[in-house]
Amino acid sequence: MRVVIALGGNAMTSPDGRARPEDQIAAIRRAAGPIAAVIASGAEVVLTHGNGPQVGNLLVKNEMAAHVVPPVPLDWCGAQTQGTVGFVLLNALTERLPEVRATALVTRALVDAHDPGFMNPTKPIGRYLSSAEAALMIQHGQRWEDRGDRGWRRVVASPEPRAVLDAPAIETLLRAGYAVICNGGGGIPVVREADGRLRGVEAVIDKDLGAALLAHTLNADTMVIATDVEAAVIGWGTPQARPLGEIGVAELREFASEGHFASGSMGPKVEAACRFAENGGRSVITSLDSIADAVNGAVGTTVTNQVRS
Amino acid sequence: MRVVIALGGNAMTSPDGRARPEDQIAAIRRAAGPIAAVIASGAEVVLTHGNGPQVGNLLVKNEMAAHVVPPVPLDWCGAQTQGTVGFVLLNALTERLPEVRATALVTRALVDAHDPGFMNPTKPIGRYLSSAEAALMIQHGQRWEDRGDRGWRRVVASPEPRAVLDAPAIETLLRAGYAVICNGGGGIPVVREADGRLRGVEAVIDKDLGAALLAHTLNADTMVIATDVEAAVIGWGTPQARPLGEIGVAELREFASEGHFASGSMGPKVEAACRFAENGGRSVITSLDSIADAVNGAVGTTVTNQVRS
Repeated sequence: MRVVIALGGNAMTSPDGRARPEDQIAAIRRAAGPIAAVIASGAEVVLTHGNGPQVGNLLVKNEMAAHVVPPVPLDWCGAQTQGTVGFVLLNALTERLPEVRATALVTRALVDAHDPGFMNPTKPIGRYLSSAEAALMIQHGQRWEDRGDRGWRRVVASPEPRAVLDAPAIETLLRAGYAVICNGGGGIPVVREADGRLRGVEAVIDKDLGAALLAHTLNADTMVIATDVEAAVIGWGTPQARPLGEIGVAELREFASEGHFASGSMGPKVEAACRFAENGGRSVITSLDSIADAVNGAVGTTVTNQVRS
Repeated sequence: MRVVIALGGNAMTSPDGRARPEDQIAAIRRAAGPIAAVIASGAEVVLTHGNGPQVGNLLVKNEMAAHVVPPVPLDWCGAQTQGTVGFVLLNALTERLPEVRATALVTRALVDAHDPGFMNPTKPIGRYLSSAEAALMIQHGQRWEDRGDRGWRRVVASPEPRAVLDAPAIETLLRAGYAVICNGGGGIPVVREADGRLRGVEAVIDKDLGAALLAHTLNADTMVIATDVEAAVIGWGTPQARPLGEIGVAELREFASEGHFASGSMGPKVEAACRFAENGGRSVITSLDSIADAVNGAVGTTVTNQVRS
């Protein structure tokens, strides 16, 4: 049994959303419990993670120190979070399961330079700035949008991940018995130039769509998207609210097209779950604390390609 | 033939020492040429690197944005540079040798919580501050020293690396045919608490001493320390200046004890070379452009444990 677990940003910040280093360490140590239970069950485990709050902090640092040290591009910020989150996850897993081998890999996601996302960037990142501050960043080639009362916000492309470039190394390590931490933030986005050169690009890959591609590439049996709710819910916030249990892709896509899932949160998780299920896998959306049960099919929204009898 | 190559900071900045992202990418793309030649020769290659300029930049960002986002500890800065340098090196190696598999690992170095370095921190890092600014950092628990006209500078512990915690994963990948980028900055320093927990510590490991431990742990044949000179030189800056070629450990240690090598630059490289040679390996100190020849023993200061006949 091979399992890909995708940890949301909430698994790496304190309950009030703070992302101080001590908050991140405490949250990750807590998250390591359920993950360790899956590893201890004998499954091959691949662990991937979001990095929104961490990248947000790095962008602020870039900006505030720009008159003294050169800012680094967004792809480097992603690489930085693969380093830090990987480091903290490694330590946390070692603490829970001293005898288990875990390792963390720098992982790149190939994207298409002609992805429509680059023509029309829509993913908001980082903090709000005043129009004067934003104007300065626009001069530096960035795209910022007026978001009304809260101010201006940077928007970047969120292209489709096309290939997990470092998948062969992940496969090698899994076969040797390692739990592998990889593809953080959906992978560091790179494009391949005409001459073969790989070049990092300033973009944000959806970490759940990255996880679905990762799970498919590694031929995983199950992908668990760990979030802060037990299951995907239709009719959210209405008296008809109903959590979804086992469901087929077609039915779930229909709910999605009816607008049941918010575009910035549950929407991409549902889309990722559908994609992996369409490729023959089993996807589960559930809470962090339930991931061990989710692997056994007992909880959460479980998505498969099978038509119900 | 298994080779550990340690890249100095100069291999990752522009000739004038600048460390803008574009400078780092250009320098690393250039460095990838000699490294690719060693890989193409059929050797198993482990690549490690310094991170001084990169960590220096991260510390400035920490400091300048501290009133908005929480600073991260020094061990996280090291993890961040393993991410970025690993990412850029991976892309550069893929460009040179599209058919060769390379991978980059987050790597931790175990240090002893009772290392004398923690009692008496001596390693200067980051930029100079005024006494008032330094006083504020001292209030936050950091150690800063008055360095005269240039101002105050932070000093941290530089403990001995005791174990490369992620060596088994490196070994697995080498055996599967990967060139492995790892142990950047000498490894991210961690201590093991009484209860078994691994905890990152604010310290700087000498990257060359880290490379020597890495090379010994992996049972490498050769360690090449790539720097900006062709060989270690005795009598540097005097009319009697003489580059060292093949030399035994005992003789080299004697030169070292006579003060021939600067403590902040060639000194640790010589010490690292001696350590690995004492453990039975062959160490070479040479320039980046000469590393392929150095593996074949044709250039550089070559250190072995053998007594000359």
